[in-house]
Amino acid sequence: MNRINTLFGIQYPLVQAGMIWCSGWELASAVSNAGGLGLIGAGSMYPDILRQQLQKCREATDKPFGVNIPLLYPEVEKLMELVLEFRVPIVFTSAGNPKTWTPKLKDAGIRVVHVVSSSTFARKAEEAGCDAVVAEGFEAGGHNGREETTTMCLIPLVSRAVGIPVIAAGGIGSGRAMLAAMVLGAEGVQVGSRFVATEESSAHQAFKKQVIQAKEGDTLLTLKELTPVRLLRNPFFDEVMEAYRRGADREELAALLGRGRAKKGMFEGDLESGELEIGQVSAGIRDIIPAAEVVRQMLAEFRSAKASLDESGFSF
Amino acid sequence: MNRINTLFGIQYPLVQAGMIWCSGWELASAVSNAGGLGLIGAGSMYPDILRQQLQKCREATDKPFGVNIPLLYPEVEKLMELVLEFRVPIVFTSAGNPKTWTPKLKDAGIRVVHVVSSSTFARKAEEAGCDAVVAEGFEAGGHNGREETTTMCLIPLVSRAVGIPVIAAGGIGSGRAMLAAMVLGAEGVQVGSRFVATEESSAHQAFKKQVIQAKEGDTLLTLKELTPVRLLRNPFFDEVMEAYRRGADREELAALLGRGRAKKGMFEGDLESGELEIGQVSAGIRDIIPAAEVVRQMLAEFRSAKASLDESGFSF
Repeated sequence: MNRINTLFGIQYPLVQAGMIWCSGWELASAVSNAGGLGLIGAGSMYPDILRQQLQKCREATDKPFGVNIPLLYPEVEKLMELVLEFRVPIVFTSAGNPKTWTPKLKDAGIRVVHVVSSSTFARKAEEAGCDAVVAEGFEAGGHNGREETTTMCLIPLVSRAVGIPVIAAGGIGSGRAMLAAMVLGAEGVQVGSRFVATEESSAHQAFKKQVIQAKEGDTLLTLKELTPVRLLRNPFFDEVMEAYRRGADREELAALLGRGRAKKGMFEGDLESGELEIGQVSAGIRDIIPAAEVVRQMLAEFRSAKASLDESGFSF
Repeated sequence: MNRINTLFGIQYPLVQAGMIWCSGWELASAVSNAGGLGLIGAGSMYPDILRQQLQKCREATDKPFGVNIPLLYPEVEKLMELVLEFRVPIVFTSAGNPKTWTPKLKDAGIRVVHVVSSSTFARKAEEAGCDAVVAEGFEAGGHNGREETTTMCLIPLVSRAVGIPVIAAGGIGSGRAMLAAMVLGAEGVQVGSRFVATEESSAHQAFKKQVIQAKEGDTLLTLKELTPVRLLRNPFFDEVMEAYRRGADREELAALLGRGRAKKGMFEGDLESGELEIGQVSAGIRDIIPAAEVVRQMLAEFRSAKASLDESGFSF
């Protein structure tokens, strides 16, 4: 028995991260149909867009799917109303206090998972009544914790700190990494970057192509004075570095970032002036494939890595 | 068969990192006697000190042991002469070009391993004739790569890039992490921080006590303009942060760091003004125990983690 499979009613404990601008109904339904858990990333959607997305996702799959909602979203109540109206069975929350919404969602029979970057926040999520936590390491794309704890170090610490199941995120784009995360104490994995480079991802084609060309060292965690975020190097990223070199303060950085950078980069494909959020694991991603193929490949590699442990020289 | 065991003639593919100020003959011989590979960290030793250390280590164990030599060490020739004179069977090199010394050491029948932080450097080490590489992730203590690639992301990339065996380092202080690293493609692990907090480590007792009290987020990679180094937060670390806030340039940072900070902190136990190098994994280390007990515990946990994979719910 795997507690994550049971909790969500899914076949494989493989969650597709609900990422802004990249994960709409097409990606979420494809992953759910393939036996994982697809999440609609509502953080980049107006409420009426989320309504359309939920309708289409419901039509596209009869499997469980979920929605990721950043709790700092300005009109978070409207998103939550839609979740309740559509009886979405699973909600992942991030970037905010899990106490605010978890009890209300739980009362409606919804499974609630909160994304954390430390044991301290994991314990708070457990106390708030969450059913599981996503523990996300430093290598993950997009917004990230201030402690900079990597997946390798974070998963054992969080698994020890809480009794609810832990879903590992950050650096997981292959079956080997999935197995490694579970060896470290996770009971499931959340995969972001690998699903950005899929046919069903709503990321702009130009951004997808950039992702599969990324090399080691091409992403860095930056803008730590605002909210730490892992970005792919591009001319906008260079502007940020230049601002640091001239000693820019918090206000200047915020002004430079401005608004709409993420949409511009990831959704509209402006690789020059847009913000491109992706994880370190992009250095190992080389093709744009269907989401179901990602699930199939990861599970196949997971099984063969597990089987080869027994035949390997690891017996001492 | 495990290629690392065969290469070094050891029982377990568990290498104790050759760390400055922390790993003298007592630690190295204890680890080698316990079935792992102990390394003397020569980076903090004058040549005559290394001579004494080699003599004592030879007396304390008849098992293979090695020496870690940073190639940027000012009198590196003198250290290498001692290695040849004492017929040390294994040399780990770091911080420099592996082409310079690898052929000479290999000609003398010495096994040579180079420490890298990227696939590019791993390939260069292989081309230089190294027998293996240590691939060290962002979470590791002390000096670190500029790419900031974490162990979870680095090991699969390096394993794919080279044909020689890969030893994983960074974030590995438990048997679970050891197994995870091997699932990711490593054939052995190098463990640093966990061995700092041992009875045989030459670290100052005050530093050891600080290590076992470290929590998540208590270490950060800093001084990136000089050489990136992961330090434990302390008053000296705060001074560095303060220098950054006032926009200090490279020269000011170098002046602030000065000379002898690492010795002061780690060897002399000056927790206020010394530099304390330790990895993120310190957040999971809670006791100071004999080095042989570290080896025993890690292997026991490795075996049980491996066995429990078969009984677990990971069959899908």
